[in-house]
Formats: sequence, structure tokens, C-alpha cells
Amino acid sequence: MIRAGVIGASGLAGGELIRLITQHPDLELTFLGGSSNIGRRPAQLHPGLRIDTGLTVQPVTEDVADHVDVILLATPAPVSAELAALLADRVPAVVDLSGAFRIRTPERHRRWYPKVERRADLADRFVYGVPELVGDQLADAALISLPGCYATAITLGLAPLTLGLGLDLKTVVVDGKSGSSGGGLQLRTADLHPFRNGAIAPYAPTGHRHAAEVSDFLERSKPGTLGSLSMSAYGVSHVRGLLTSAYVFTDGEVDQRTLQRAYLRFYKGHRFVRVRRHTETLIPVPDPQAVLGSNYCDVTAMYDEEAGRIVVLAALDNLVKGAAGQAVQAVNLRFGLPEETGLTMHPVMPA
Amino acid sequence: MIRAGVIGASGLAGGELIRLITQHPDLELTFLGGSSNIGRRPAQLHPGLRIDTGLTVQPVTEDVADHVDVILLATPAPVSAELAALLADRVPAVVDLSGAFRIRTPERHRRWYPKVERRADLADRFVYGVPELVGDQLADAALISLPGCYATAITLGLAPLTLGLGLDLKTVVVDGKSGSSGGGLQLRTADLHPFRNGAIAPYAPTGHRHAAEVSDFLERSKPGTLGSLSMSAYGVSHVRGLLTSAYVFTDGEVDQRTLQRAYLRFYKGHRFVRVRRHTETLIPVPDPQAVLGSNYCDVTAMYDEEAGRIVVLAALDNLVKGAAGQAVQAVNLRFGLPEETGLTMHPVMPA
Amino acid sequence: MIRAGVIGASGLAGGELIRLITQHPDLELTFLGGSSNIGRRPAQLHPGLRIDTGLTVQPVTEDVADHVDVILLATPAPVSAELAALLADRVPAVVDLSGAFRIRTPERHRRWYPKVERRADLADRFVYGVPELVGDQLADAALISLPGCYATAITLGLAPLTLGLGLDLKTVVVDGKSGSSGGGLQLRTADLHPFRNGAIAPYAPTGHRHAAEVSDFLERSKPGTLGSLSMSAYGVSHVRGLLTSAYVFTDGEVDQRTLQRAYLRFYKGHRFVRVRRHTETLIPVPDPQAVLGSNYCDVTAMYDEEAGRIVVLAALDNLVKGAAGQAVQAVNLRFGLPEETGLTMHPVMPA
Amino acid sequence: MIRAGVIGASGLAGGELIRLITQHPDLELTFLGGSSNIGRRPAQLHPGLRIDTGLTVQPVTEDVADHVDVILLATPAPVSAELAALLADRVPAVVDLSGAFRIRTPERHRRWYPKVERRADLADRFVYGVPELVGDQLADAALISLPGCYATAITLGLAPLTLGLGLDLKTVVVDGKSGSSGGGLQLRTADLHPFRNGAIAPYAPTGHRHAAEVSDFLERSKPGTLGSLSMSAYGVSHVRGLLTSAYVFTDGEVDQRTLQRAYLRFYKGHRFVRVRRHTETLIPVPDPQAVLGSNYCDVTAMYDEEAGRIVVLAALDNLVKGAAGQAVQAVNLRFGLPEETGLTMHPVMPA
Repeated sequence: MIRAGVIGASGLAGGELIRLITQHPDLELTFLGGSSNIGRRPAQLHPGLRIDTGLTVQPVTEDVADHVDVILLATPAPVSAELAALLADRVPAVVDLSGAFRIRTPERHRRWYPKVERRADLADRFVYGVPELVGDQLADAALISLPGCYATAITLGLAPLTLGLGLDLKTVVVDGKSGSSGGGLQLRTADLHPFRNGAIAPYAPTGHRHAAEVSDFLERSKPGTLGSLSMSAYGVSHVRGLLTSAYVFTDGEVDQRTLQRAYLRFYKGHRFVRVRRHTETLIPVPDPQAVLGSNYCDVTAMYDEEAGRIVVLAALDNLVKGAAGQAVQAVNLRFGLPEETGLTMHPVMPA
Repeated sequence: MIRAGVIGASGLAGGELIRLITQHPDLELTFLGGSSNIGRRPAQLHPGLRIDTGLTVQPVTEDVADHVDVILLATPAPVSAELAALLADRVPAVVDLSGAFRIRTPERHRRWYPKVERRADLADRFVYGVPELVGDQLADAALISLPGCYATAITLGLAPLTLGLGLDLKTVVVDGKSGSSGGGLQLRTADLHPFRNGAIAPYAPTGHRHAAEVSDFLERSKPGTLGSLSMSAYGVSHVRGLLTSAYVFTDGEVDQRTLQRAYLRFYKGHRFVRVRRHTETLIPVPDPQAVLGSNYCDVTAMYDEEAGRIVVLAALDNLVKGAAGQAVQAVNLRFGLPEETGLTMHPVMPA
Repeated sequence: MIRAGVIGASGLAGGELIRLITQHPDLELTFLGGSSNIGRRPAQLHPGLRIDTGLTVQPVTEDVADHVDVILLATPAPVSAELAALLADRVPAVVDLSGAFRIRTPERHRRWYPKVERRADLADRFVYGVPELVGDQLADAALISLPGCYATAITLGLAPLTLGLGLDLKTVVVDGKSGSSGGGLQLRTADLHPFRNGAIAPYAPTGHRHAAEVSDFLERSKPGTLGSLSMSAYGVSHVRGLLTSAYVFTDGEVDQRTLQRAYLRFYKGHRFVRVRRHTETLIPVPDPQAVLGSNYCDVTAMYDEEAGRIVVLAALDNLVKGAAGQAVQAVNLRFGLPEETGLTMHPVMPA
Repeated sequence: MIRAGVIGASGLAGGELIRLITQHPDLELTFLGGSSNIGRRPAQLHPGLRIDTGLTVQPVTEDVADHVDVILLATPAPVSAELAALLADRVPAVVDLSGAFRIRTPERHRRWYPKVERRADLADRFVYGVPELVGDQLADAALISLPGCYATAITLGLAPLTLGLGLDLKTVVVDGKSGSSGGGLQLRTADLHPFRNGAIAPYAPTGHRHAAEVSDFLERSKPGTLGSLSMSAYGVSHVRGLLTSAYVFTDGEVDQRTLQRAYLRFYKGHRFVRVRRHTETLIPVPDPQAVLGSNYCDVTAMYDEEAGRIVVLAALDNLVKGAAGQAVQAVNLRFGLPEETGLTMHPVMPA
């Protein structure tokens, strides 16, 4: 059994990590850390998790290294930066779910995470990326930085165009739509049910740091192929799941058949990315309700002939493939397990 | 009192017309027409309208002309095309809420409404447009074609850029998000509550005919200013209200202050279009929940400096400003009443 | 014009009072009071109310008496108790929407409002009750205490049985279901959208003070007819509107026809209480979605022959007929206006 | 591997059976039957199940017996009655999820299932009941009839009172609240999203056949202990999960502590029934959102001293513990597997 610790156990991502780890055949939850709710059991923090893990939330010290093989940081970025510095080289694997180490370019990091000070030498050691796109870099990685929920969807949607088809993405306009769980559990009036229900809330209309992360990654993966990528983000009236729409303008030649084939080929053997035809089932897909609770990301690329653009849709559960599920997937790869171990649950639908 | 008749009384737009006309001080509902539900009272069709109008749904013949000063067609486009031919020149004013007469360019009409045959001479006589943008053309207009719900929002959002600031809109990417009432009451499995709730359903990802309507209008209003306009539409998890996001790339010089001033100036004196600052209240605006049940359209334009684009957001209640309310507004202007007559209700929020 | 002031302008009931008063032909909003948000305009507090009243929230002193003919208290019960003592006899009419003066029996008041100290002499002067049930007591009343949202529905549902049919209500079991707006805007984790959406939250399973209020009123109105009345309350997954189910066991003779007739007779001439047949329209009624935004209360009584019980359902919009609308209705009656003045808006449905 | 066939594969319960069986370590899905959608794959019927089972929906003949060890009937009651007659004695185990064989008393069956003709000899052979309450009757049972979703919750809630504490239940008033998935996928206007969202729809206010089922079972299990049991059922504004409230009046002596102990003792060793304290976590429990997607039923009993009644709350996922999960649990027990096999997934929350 691989011993896993979760820090930031009170939040939604923390709760989801506990859900997945305690369902995992080869992981054992051996530590829960946090700065609030000290002494509390998971069942007291997460109403859905009435399980007895024998653990309560503890303050984090370097002694945590004695109890875990891998530590998962579901903490705010500034906290992750500190904890990574503390635990790197003490724990065999540190997996960070925050944005602290996602952006490699220093100026861009400062622009989007002005309050997150991190050691440059540490930052450079992190493997960043969606597991499907980083090849075997995760095997034996000591430090792993997981993409944001939106970034995961956008990157999985665009990668076959650049890395697969070799297209230049001249202009990419991303529109992201997310349920309320994407915003966490902070106490804000606008997030109370009476105001959040029925909303289409344009909470980040002129930019989102997940877009910076995607640009950073794509430029690094294949320099020169990305022109401009802009993003707007909206909160819509459900709880779990997000959809990203990328409207792509390229000078390259492309048609619907080429797109469909390229996506199928690109994700062949990657069970968590499901390339779908838009009209496949009785509801249009991708739609996040069709991946709820699961680690799938559904992707579709369509050629909009009239407008001369490619429309790329990607849907995932922001707490699973967009956070805790992807973290477990990375841990699986890090420790040599099949990537789907503990992650084979089907979506719960309708819900 | 102006005598008003509603045809298509069973649908959602028909119900909303009944709601607004029976609340209107100067309109009297004198006819309800339809091809189904003959003999039924409004209360039997619309659970919210338990009112006694003394009317039941009747088949439509040319005799309806004896009973009305204005007829409102809340019928499918093919039916509207037939009824308009029947009633034009018999009824002082015909107001069509369908798409039958929205697109002026014949090829474009055929492309988007292949099954709607209409007489070209009749089509040319229709005044099309959002009341705020057609000046005094509605006064004494015999035939009025109202924009679609999305088209209203998009056009109100873009008009200050072209007609006000004189900008060329090189590329416009529109992302539309609508509640389930936008789809009417057709019996489809995908629209049953278990599948529609929690959905982000990309129902028109590569094009929507409302976009064609907008292009048609903008090109006509100011030839040469529109490059390409593409649209994708999504159904999200609430019932009433829509938001359109227009991502606009232009070569023109622009900044945030210019934008805000131009929008305020453009809509000065037009009470139903409210130019908002994005951060104005405790929830980000425009958000359709803040206009629910009212005839307002909230508009915001932001300059996204980093991406060199303009983000234009517009929110409205698809059944009011996007359909029945706009129809009543047009009727008011047609008959010389103040445009807000019967339309001064505030939004119902939270709801 | 009757000059009206609203205290507690920041809350949901306060916002709804502003909505209704500024739509009212004979009321003028002349004062906004509160202890927080001093200096703010309604538009800054209520995203749906982007109106210019010329008013900002002010601290309350006795000088408010110079500016108003009626003051409406949308304040927590302890605050209402204080403000009523300050303003009684200074302002021609004080209308309290809180629970401070609802319960007449002192022990019962202490049991359910242990922290609300009020002067007994003042309490005795308040007219309590649903306007439909207190006859002409509201004409010229100086002090008015309005029932709670649940209490309004329950009382309107039960009154025809006791006051109309003269039945003894041996055992009444009330089950109340409310949307999230019933809980106001307090910052509680459980009321954040992720946890409140999809919930059936039994927040008051073994008792609710609105039930005490109903018992108090019914016992006073017709002593000896009420055996026991118990209540449980649940928060369900929408925003606005509530339904109360009263399961009534009585020794009296009763049948469906008698019930229906008695209810119709009892509410004859009372336009805001609509007696419905359960199967009347395409959705089962009463259902709060069919009264949203309006001042109606829909009531149905059914005889459940198999179980020997009467099932009484009542639905209303908790912020309108359950709060602000009922307050305006009371003000209308107090000042000799037709009770429906400013309250004739239809429900907004679907929403 | 135990070979399992599902008939009624197109419906919601059928889809959920496919979800659970294909996640089960010891069950193999070997047959999909139905009368519609012949030739279709699960992925075409259930957007959440994009899996390759190698199966398509087939018409049902007695030959199905060659392919399965157990057949699960997720069919309407009249169809189940026919199929059970066809397959009994041909297939080792027939598990019926419909109401065809739930009620033992013939008159009661006719009263609630007037259109379901079934052979009396066959009906008598069915083992009925919630697995937790039927002891070892399921081991080797050839015919199993599973309780309805509401019936499961009500029975699990009341059993500790009668079977555990030996109380007489003089009067039981049940109020059931369910999400829209409880109504299946029939095409009805009232179930379209615009009308079902925001509803509190009293769809069975004076009686529900699940209550008849509960009475039948309780009277049979411990004759003479049940006075009257009445029920009303409501559809509320979410998709998955139900809550039953049983308001119980008894002459017996009882207090809160006794209740809590009795429930804990009664369900000791039954992992799927979780006895909860009402205030246990940050949201009031039981609440169906805290069991979503899982096989748990959360139960709480409270003594309402003021009213002299017991309030019993029970929450479950109507498609899992209320249908497919309970079916798999019964299959596990029938074939000698640990009852939790394949059912250990945690709730997905928030969702």
C-alpha cells in the first residue's frame, strides 16, 4: 500500500481526494493536514463522507514525512508554495493541486500569482501537466504540479491540433462555463444559493489565470504555434462540472474528417479522454453532466466551415479530472500503477 | 383601448404575451388563436395565468380582422409566413415574433429557413429590428418582424461599436448561453428535467440562425463594417434568461473609458437598455437573473487589453425583452404610446 | 401619495418592499433605514433594483417620523421590538414583518422568541394577521404585525375548516417546504450554492415558530377548536416560494364537495387567495412556481377518504404574499385603498 | 462470474443497473432486453455510459435463460408480471424492481395495481423486502420482489420502532419528497425542464401505492402494530434522491435517547443503513444530497416532545438504494457474496 497524505482536507478538492483515496485499492490514507478544523474527522467536514478513517486533521510539520509516501496539497497557492519548500526532498512525492507551480515563465507567474512567492529552483523541478500529455515524465517524479480544472480541459482540447496535426493556432478564444463547486466554499454573498442559482455570472470576463497556464504550456511544448489565446469565464447554475469552448482560427487546411481522425489517434490508449461525436447520444456532447463523478474528459472538435474556424469542446468534472481524480491518476503513474487504478467508476447520471 | 390578438397562445411566448397584455393599461386582449388547444382558456394552458379573459383559443380565419387592431404572431416561422400573408392589409398591424421575416437577404433566408416560404414583396415591407435601433420606423408600421432573443442581445451589444463608435468589427465570436425556456415546450427526452438539469448542452456549436439575422441587420445598417461573425449556443441549467458574450477583434483604437462613454451616450434616453459597469453590484453584471421578468437588457463592454479585444456582454429575459416584452414595446411605439407603457415592472430577484 | 419608509433595506424582504413600493401608484418611498450599508443606494444592495430613488440607507432615529406616513420594519425581531417602541405613536402606522409581535400568549412568546424583549402594552396593541382573516381591523390600525411566510400559508389553508365549516381540528401535522430565499442572506457554509443546491434539508424537523404563531391565532380566533398542531420544515432546491401541507384529522363529517364549496365561499371576494382544484392545469396545483413574483396564495383542500383525513395545500411566494406583498396589502387597507393596489402583477412563470 | 441480464435497459433504473453491474467484480452483464430500442448499445441510451459491453438491446424470449444466472426486471409492472411468469423456473433467480409482486394482500394489490394481472401462485413465491429486513430469506431465493424507492426509505425508517422497540404505530403520516428522476423519462409537458425546475409539485397528495406496500409489509411482519398509515408525495426541484418524513403518533413510552440507541442497535452490522444524529455535520441530515450515487440510506429518529410524536427521516438515492443498488445488494445475498460487493462507492457530494 502506498501511504498518502492530504493537506487542505477541509476544502472541496480535499474532500474529493479523501473520497477517491479511500476507494483506491492501493492507496492508504495516512495523514490529513490543515490549518483550520484541527482535530476534526472527515465526516464532520464533508457530509458525504461518513467514513471512519481513524484520522483527524492535524497541523503540518516536517514530521509528516514519516507517515506518507506521497503528499497531496489541496491548499491555496501561497500555502502550497510554503509546504512544497518544506516537504520537497523529505517526502518521496509531492503533488500540488494549486496554481503555485503551474506557470514556468517568471513574468507570467508574477502577473497572475503576484502574491505567491516561490523558490525558482524548486519551481523548475516540478513536472507540470495533464498526465495524458507529459508522457513518462511522471514516473519517479518527485514534484508534480497539476493543471487547473479549466486548463486541463482546454489543453486536452487543443493538444491534438498543435501536437497532433501540427497546426498553428493563430487566434484562440476560450469561453469557460463552470458550476458553483469551481469556486470553493468561501463565504461570499454572491455565492449564497439565492444569488448563485439561476445565474450566468461572468466572473472573469477579460481573463483567467488558467488561460495563462495553457499558453505557457503550449508555447513550451511546441514553440511558435500559438498566436493569441484569450479567455472569459462564467459561473452557471449547477454545482459540479465544467465545459470549455475553444474557438480556433488557423491558417492551416483542415476538415471535419481529418479532425475526428486526428483526435481519435491522438487519444488512442488514453481511456480517460473520450473523443466524441457531437451528436452521438440523445443529448449533445460533450456535456459535463455525462462525466459527473468520473475521471473522464469528453472532447469534440468540429469544423465550422461557414466561419472557417474549429470549435473544440471539452467537458470534465472539475473536482475529479479537474482536480482530485487527476491527482490520483498522477500518483498512479508516479508509483508505477496502471493509471486507471481506483478511478474506474462510471459517471453518475442523471444527477 | 387598442385591441390585441395573440396567435400561438399555447406556447411560452404566447403565454408571456397574455401576461403582459392583460397587465397593460392601454391594450385589451380580444382574440386568442391557435391550431391546437381550441376551446381552452389561458388558465388551462399556462399554470401561472389563472385569469378570466373571457376568451378561449380559436382557429384563425381572416375574420379575426374584425376584432383586433394588432395581431401578434407567436407561431412557428412557417405558420407566421402563412398568417402574415392572410392578415397583412386586413389588420392595421401585424407583429411577428418568429424568424419568418427576420432575414432580408434571400440566399441567407433560404440557408437558415429552408422550409419557410414567404412572399418576397411581403417580406420587404416588414420593419425588422430592436425598437432601440430602428428609430421612428415603427410609428405607423403595418408589418413588424421582431428579432430573435439572442439576436436582440447581440445586436444591442454590438450596435454602439459600429453605429456609435464607427468601428470595423473584423472578427466577432459570439457565445450564447440560454435557460431551458428558450427551447419552448416540445416533448424531447433531452429536455426532460432529469437530463436538462445540470446540463451545459452545446446545442448549436457551429452556428445559430440568430447570428445570421444579426449579420444581416448589421451589414444593412452600416455596410462594410462587419468582417465575420460566428456563434455557438449552449443550454445551461436554469429556466429563464440568456447571456450573450461577443468577443470582438477590431483594428480600431479603443480603450475602456471610450467604450463606457460611447455605450452610455448611445443608449441615453432608452430606458430598457441599461449600460452597466461589470463590477457594479455584489454580483457580476450583466447576469440574466438581474433582469428576470422585466423588459431590461443589461449591457457591458470591456476592453481586454492583454488580448486586444473587446468583450461585450448582454443579458435579457428571453421571454420578455427577447420576445413578448419587446413585442409590446413595438406595439406601444406603433400606436404612439410611450414605449414603456405596461412594461415598467422591476425584475423579480432573487428567483 | 402615502409616504413609506423601509427599515432593514439590505435584506431580501427589504429589497422586495422597495420593488413593490416603487411600482405602487399611491405609495412614495421616502426613507430607507438600516444599521449596516449606511450611505448605499438600493442598486448597490439589490442587483435587480437598478433604480434611482434618490435615497440611501440612513441610521434610524425618531426623526424618521417627519418623513413618513407608514414605516415598514423588515428587521430581525429584536430590532423590530426596539424600533416599534421608538416609533409607535410617532408614525401614523408601523408595520412589522418580523416575529416580534406575532405571538400574543406571553409564555409562548418566551418559548419561541427568548431573546426578544418587548413591552406587553405595546404588544397588545398590534393587529396580527393575514389581511383576509382580520376583517376591517386593519383600517386605521396604528400597529400591524404581519404573519410569517409559513404562517400565512398554513392559516389561509386552515381557516375555512375552523372559521368556515366550524370543524374541530383534532390533530394537524404540517410539513413545510421552502426555497432558499426563506433563509435570508446570512453567510453560512450550508447555504452556499454547492451544498444548498440539490438539498432536501430538514432544517426544523421537530418544530418551527411559525407553527406556534398559527396555533396562537387559531386558538384566539375560535377557542377550543384546535387540538394539537405540529410542524416540520425543509429547505428544498429552488429559490423563491413555499408550499405548506397540513394533514388534518377531525371527528367532523366532511366530504370533497363540501370542502371545495366551503373554501370557495370562504374566500369569495378575496382575490389574492385562489381556491384551486388539485388537477386544474397541466401541473398539479398548488405549486409555488405558479405564484412566483405575485401576491397570490393558491389553496386546495382534498378529502383523503382512505385515510380519513383532510389534506390542505397552500402555496405562496415567501417574499411577496409571505412578506413584502402582504405588507403592502396591509398598508393599502390601513390607508383606505383597494387592497390590490400596486399588487396586480401576474406570476412570472416559468422561471 | 455470475451472469446477469437486465430487461428494461432503456429506462433510468435499467441504466443504473448497467452502471452498477459493469462496475461489479463478480457480476458479468450478459444480456440486455427490452421492447423498444432493439439493436441499440447502452451508450446510445444512456449518455453517461459510454462503455463497450458488446451487447445491444434484444427482444426477450425464454432463450434468455441460456445466457444468465439472474435476470433483473426494470420493466413496468404489467410487463414484469408477464416476464416473471415466463422466466420463473427457467432462470435461477428473477429479481423484479417493479410493483407487480410487492403487495401480498390480493384486494390491496387490485386497489393499487388494477391493471397488473399476476398469477397468485407465482406472487406467493416472491420474497419481498428490503434486504436489511428479510434476514436470510434472500439466500437461494428464486424470485425476489424489491420494494419501491419510497417504500424502502419508509420501511427502513419505521422498522426499528415496530420490530425493534415493539411500539404500536397508532397513526403514521408520511410526507415524501423526490427529485425528478423518480418519475422516469416519460414525455409529459409537466416534466419538461421549464415546468419541473423550481416546482414543488404535489403529484400524489392523497395517497401513493408505496404506502400500501409499506402497510402490507409491516402488518405482515408484526400483525396488529400498525394503526393507519397515510402518505402524500411531492416532486421537488432536483434530479436524484428522495427524503421521507414519517410523523408517528404512538401510545408507547419513548424518549430521544431510547430512540437513538434502538436505531443504532437495530442496524448494527448493516453498513448501508446509517443511523445519523440530525445535527451531525454542517448540513442537517438525513439529506439525499449526502447519499447521491451510493447505496446508503441515512436514517434519523427524533422525539418531538412538545408534539408527543416521533419524527423519522430517511434519505436515499432513488436509483441506487431505491432501485438498482438494492437489486445488486439482493443479488449479492442471493448468490452468497458479501452484500456490499460492487456497492462500496462513496456518495458524490457536492453535486
